[in-house]
Amino acid sequence: MRIDSRANDQLRPVTITRHYIKHAEGSCLIEIGDTKVICTATIEDRVPPFMRNGGKGWITAEYSMLPRATATRNPRESSRGKVGGRTMEIQRLIGRALRSVVHLEGMGERTIWLDCDVIQADGGTRTASITGAYVAMVDAMNKLVESGVWKQLPLHDFLAATSVGVVGEDSVLDLNYKEDSTATVDMNVVMTGAGKFVELQGTGEDAPFSPEQLQEMLALAKNGIDQLITIQKQALSDVTLPFANKELGESDTLVGESHV
Amino acid sequence: MRIDSRANDQLRPVTITRHYIKHAEGSCLIEIGDTKVICTATIEDRVPPFMRNGGKGWITAEYSMLPRATATRNPRESSRGKVGGRTMEIQRLIGRALRSVVHLEGMGERTIWLDCDVIQADGGTRTASITGAYVAMVDAMNKLVESGVWKQLPLHDFLAATSVGVVGEDSVLDLNYKEDSTATVDMNVVMTGAGKFVELQGTGEDAPFSPEQLQEMLALAKNGIDQLITIQKQALSDVTLPFANKELGESDTLVGESHV
Amino acid sequence: MRIDSRANDQLRPVTITRHYIKHAEGSCLIEIGDTKVICTATIEDRVPPFMRNGGKGWITAEYSMLPRATATRNPRESSRGKVGGRTMEIQRLIGRALRSVVHLEGMGERTIWLDCDVIQADGGTRTASITGAYVAMVDAMNKLVESGVWKQLPLHDFLAATSVGVVGEDSVLDLNYKEDSTATVDMNVVMTGAGKFVELQGTGEDAPFSPEQLQEMLALAKNGIDQLITIQKQALSDVTLPFANKELGESDTLVGESHV
Amino acid sequence: MRIDSRANDQLRPVTITRHYIKHAEGSCLIEIGDTKVICTATIEDRVPPFMRNGGKGWITAEYSMLPRATATRNPRESSRGKVGGRTMEIQRLIGRALRSVVHLEGMGERTIWLDCDVIQADGGTRTASITGAYVAMVDAMNKLVESGVWKQLPLHDFLAATSVGVVGEDSVLDLNYKEDSTATVDMNVVMTGAGKFVELQGTGEDAPFSPEQLQEMLALAKNGIDQLITIQKQALSDVTLPFANKELGESDTLVGESHV
Amino acid sequence: MRIDSRANDQLRPVTITRHYIKHAEGSCLIEIGDTKVICTATIEDRVPPFMRNGGKGWITAEYSMLPRATATRNPRESSRGKVGGRTMEIQRLIGRALRSVVHLEGMGERTIWLDCDVIQADGGTRTASITGAYVAMVDAMNKLVESGVWKQLPLHDFLAATSVGVVGEDSVLDLNYKEDSTATVDMNVVMTGAGKFVELQGTGEDAPFSPEQLQEMLALAKNGIDQLITIQKQALSDVTLPFANKELGESDTLVGESHV
Amino acid sequence: MRIDSRANDQLRPVTITRHYIKHAEGSCLIEIGDTKVICTATIEDRVPPFMRNGGKGWITAEYSMLPRATATRNPRESSRGKVGGRTMEIQRLIGRALRSVVHLEGMGERTIWLDCDVIQADGGTRTASITGAYVAMVDAMNKLVESGVWKQLPLHDFLAATSVGVVGEDSVLDLNYKEDSTATVDMNVVMTGAGKFVELQGTGEDAPFSPEQLQEMLALAKNGIDQLITIQKQALSDVTLPFANKELGESDTLVGESHV
Repeated sequence: MRIDSRANDQLRPVTITRHYIKHAEGSCLIEIGDTKVICTATIEDRVPPFMRNGGKGWITAEYSMLPRATATRNPRESSRGKVGGRTMEIQRLIGRALRSVVHLEGMGERTIWLDCDVIQADGGTRTASITGAYVAMVDAMNKLVESGVWKQLPLHDFLAATSVGVVGEDSVLDLNYKEDSTATVDMNVVMTGAGKFVELQGTGEDAPFSPEQLQEMLALAKNGIDQLITIQKQALSDVTLPFANKELGESDTLVGESHV
Repeated sequence: MRIDSRANDQLRPVTITRHYIKHAEGSCLIEIGDTKVICTATIEDRVPPFMRNGGKGWITAEYSMLPRATATRNPRESSRGKVGGRTMEIQRLIGRALRSVVHLEGMGERTIWLDCDVIQADGGTRTASITGAYVAMVDAMNKLVESGVWKQLPLHDFLAATSVGVVGEDSVLDLNYKEDSTATVDMNVVMTGAGKFVELQGTGEDAPFSPEQLQEMLALAKNGIDQLITIQKQALSDVTLPFANKELGESDTLVGESHV
Repeated sequence: MRIDSRANDQLRPVTITRHYIKHAEGSCLIEIGDTKVICTATIEDRVPPFMRNGGKGWITAEYSMLPRATATRNPRESSRGKVGGRTMEIQRLIGRALRSVVHLEGMGERTIWLDCDVIQADGGTRTASITGAYVAMVDAMNKLVESGVWKQLPLHDFLAATSVGVVGEDSVLDLNYKEDSTATVDMNVVMTGAGKFVELQGTGEDAPFSPEQLQEMLALAKNGIDQLITIQKQALSDVTLPFANKELGESDTLVGESHV
Repeated sequence: MRIDSRANDQLRPVTITRHYIKHAEGSCLIEIGDTKVICTATIEDRVPPFMRNGGKGWITAEYSMLPRATATRNPRESSRGKVGGRTMEIQRLIGRALRSVVHLEGMGERTIWLDCDVIQADGGTRTASITGAYVAMVDAMNKLVESGVWKQLPLHDFLAATSVGVVGEDSVLDLNYKEDSTATVDMNVVMTGAGKFVELQGTGEDAPFSPEQLQEMLALAKNGIDQLITIQKQALSDVTLPFANKELGESDTLVGESHV
Repeated sequence: MRIDSRANDQLRPVTITRHYIKHAEGSCLIEIGDTKVICTATIEDRVPPFMRNGGKGWITAEYSMLPRATATRNPRESSRGKVGGRTMEIQRLIGRALRSVVHLEGMGERTIWLDCDVIQADGGTRTASITGAYVAMVDAMNKLVESGVWKQLPLHDFLAATSVGVVGEDSVLDLNYKEDSTATVDMNVVMTGAGKFVELQGTGEDAPFSPEQLQEMLALAKNGIDQLITIQKQALSDVTLPFANKELGESDTLVGESHV
Repeated sequence: MRIDSRANDQLRPVTITRHYIKHAEGSCLIEIGDTKVICTATIEDRVPPFMRNGGKGWITAEYSMLPRATATRNPRESSRGKVGGRTMEIQRLIGRALRSVVHLEGMGERTIWLDCDVIQADGGTRTASITGAYVAMVDAMNKLVESGVWKQLPLHDFLAATSVGVVGEDSVLDLNYKEDSTATVDMNVVMTGAGKFVELQGTGEDAPFSPEQLQEMLALAKNGIDQLITIQKQALSDVTLPFANKELGESDTLVGESHV
């Protein structure tokens, strides 16, 4: 039995509250157990220098924790004058993950900024950020559809993420902070609605893991992500997605138009 | 009539939700109109270098806004590698204000960190931060009373803050963002429960103000702060305060004890 | 009796030496007691990015102390790699204060940089900086009038600043460093020649102050600033000011012209 | 056929030159095709603050590229004043990977710094760094064995790393830079001599990958890493390793002794 | 004839005003033509980490220019967040130069900070800084002699510096800014009272110089430095120097004593 | 006899390996005794802002050491977030030195970046960098001649550098690290093929040096640099230089042409 009485393949309760921040083009509060992340999506009518004049859009992410999101206070990165390695790793991961399901050519030269701010942390903040950022991004994109800038959402598929790991002898799904602290293997998995891998990051610093353990963890992750995508579908049920009953790849007819 | 139909001397609706972040020793969400600030208080068992071996405690504050707390996205100070002038000014103000009602000698060599993170901004974020930080600080202090480290709260008085200003011809209380943008005079006032001034910061960059206007604004501020302190009292009704029916200065018998 | 034998409402000796630095468009050394500040004004033919294409000018200030301006050596902010909170607060204050009496529309797209470098400090450096920066700014502006770029100085009024505070039981004017160290209330006041408030920054961190004390301090400040403006008038007696015998607001006919 | 005529499961030529830098306790030049990395290992007689008084050692890594290691010049991170996200990610990876095979308890309170400096880059620099850093680390550790500080190397197992990916339709081993630029999936794998996973980092930003593709890539990686470990064994044939014919976990009797 | 009518071997007028800043242990204003530098010397009762427990003292220097010391405004290094290469080069030079005539063993574990702040620049600021810093340092050292901490000044010799260069066809002494801008060769020379070289920094970026030109410039420098040392002697005529009629090397009997 | 048995006027063995890094337009490994520096030259089709629209080219240099180039590990400047004073001084020196022999007007608006990375240090790294950077620069320039962009190399002369110093009583050439550590005088000399001085930097922090010692050192330097230039000539024997049998100044007919 796990520390919080869950089965090894059981997610913590998940809640997604859309339109959480009034100023943002898209936003939500995602709660997975005691992990709470505010995700906002901002649309900017230009792309970073390395993308200019390419006709494509860009998705970028920033991630941060409030100082008391954690059990002991973490000094602010702004006060320390630099963004730490862990934060950089996470925001690069979130950006890559979200870009994988976006039709960048369909965006025109626009950037979507995804800000994931953890207000309370209890394990799995980076995967919750990805799952929540997807919802905020869809809402922001939808603003441009509703205003007639785009004909449809420049999206290929759903996308969600979860963590799996080895705690003691067991492979388990969706580790909370206490489990994470004692896990010998920690793996984050990002998958599409079509069941393909977007990111796989497993680390066995404390104890290398066998190919068999890998397969167990991948199965748990697949199961968890399927549930998370179901929750995303419910949350976004009022939005017209361009791939509703399609497989990845069939949405190629999307045409982005820009008023700019 | 004001832009949101309030009278000139009327506060926006105020809500204080205590125990908002589970990890912090004290925390609240303060909402004043659409301005929402998460305030947390952290107790650390040491003081900064310049205070060491003085036997006294210290109160320090940090303030930040989420990038989409505002109508357009603000780049993170962590990404820019430095804390801006406005932020520094605000966090120095919050720290000074809170220290003014704390019996530092009664704290032992401990620091209380007050983190004020604005998740949604609509004017008055610095004054909301002070009013909310007070509540978070009291809850954190109370933990040390409940655990027997302190005999009573090392506090002199209540403390709250509000903004006043001149919009058009009128002096008004508690400006929202739109009013603030068009105000010619902007003043922040911090007062104690005993009705004394702790901070007064008025600026008439767009139009200098007369002594008469100053008096009008001070009267509005006094009125608003009295209401805010009433709300603080209700919020903290279960906490035993050391100055319940006393005036400032009578609480000198407080003795801080430290187990460390 | 005060520590240096002054009356409570008495300024320290004030000297303003114009044209102190040969390279600057405007400059002075202001000495108020043992506080000595070199103020220079530089005119730049462009405005910062956020002001571009608005047709208006901008005034900005920087403030610094030499390491041995103070009794013990202060590490340089350049060596520490960042500008501290106190410095930022002061330079923001100086900039706001000076802008309040400048007709920005009359400047064309130009910036005036006001550099205030304290070479010796004995209390009141920020208010001395404002009073001296005004003189340096007028001289720099006058260069553009003399060269025919402007028809008249884009100025509304005089501007000076002083500090007041509560030392022991007494409200006093123009605190030196020793007084400042023991004051329970410290207030900086910036006023125009017309007797209106531009900035009011009072802080009672050590002891909140009553409305009565506030009125006493404001009266002292008014008195001191009137004297400082008289000294400015004498110093600048050879410059044609556009508001000589006028009240604020009558100078609206000013027209800025630019050769650029 | 691959761009450089290799089979899909074929490594580029690998050379490891030990004792490449005379000052370092351990060092090598590792060349994998045209990728060339200088790896040095430095032993320091203390651990970072968060490890102090724990009686254990620490392994940390830094990674950098010379500006012209790449086809176009990369600005130095020292000139830009900060270490970029990619560099941080890589040096965190190298550190974690190497720690996984080290018996930290057997090191005493010492740190081994692994510096991996890429002098010429042609894909796979991070995995070459790990493979080379292992050799430099063993040489540095051996110095302490030879001088009698340690009885045996505080090591559990061999460790090497390689990259795999999907280029066009094919899963391929050890991608050079051109292949890497066109790969839709890129995966770095770190494994022990016992065939267990230490790190698995796969990303399909351009095209998510199927579970079948994952299995193909893992098989290629296993094959490549086995060859790399054979090369390490040859390179280190004169060093007495504590696990020569053992499986991971049997080396627990190691006792570290410190003269300090 | 030179631009300011001087002969090729003629210094500009030199003035040294001691005790210029009241807070510093030693200070002067040195004026060489229109170049004006405030030099202060601060004594600190400890040495930097790399000198600790060596029983010796240390001399270190910092150099800065006010923004309007020059014809166009230079952004502050504090605002840019880093000290530039030119500044670093100069402050390293000043520190080395002054250390060369100090008996560090005779100082005990103390640091003297030499701050050279250029308030007006017209060429030769680094050599003026060295010449002025020497005077400020002597005054600061003398404080410790007068208070009985040291028996005599821990000094070997006088020290001064000047610049020489090639302007057009001529070798000239003590270049002002306009000359410096057109010089093809620029050389700074630091010498002791005994006529030995401490620093020699010549650069012919615009036109390499011949051995004959080098000899001409060295002769001019020797002549100029002899005059500067005469001025230092007059300025310091009330201070008892330990080497009055001695050659370098004869002062070895100096004994530093420390009360700390 | 010197520590490594050399005569006082004897260089250490010198090897220059051209084309050391495949990606760079020009590159070499220069080895002088145990000092080893990788020099690369990069051509960029633009100049820094302060040179724009002047029609001239620019040469700039960067210098760095690998952390274990030295006997004890040096922290990376990228990790410390800033470039140190010594590094700045050296890279400014390298840039100035190389510019002195380049016909900048003949380059068009192009920059050549010279990167000097010390992989192993044993004294004389800055002078080895200059000598090696010259070779890398010639190779990079030659690429533009071969591709027809330039008609001939925009070069005036050869350029090399060495160090001299006083060790004990003797003036010696080309100091290794141990000699450098005990030298009382340290001088770096940069000269052209025509025997003129480009840079002269001598410092006698530990013991000022006499005019006679200066002459001795200059003679040694001249001798050493002549040998280094002979080695450069051999290394570059296949490159057509525009000044083969000419003196400086005769190459003025050079015409730079640009295809851009």
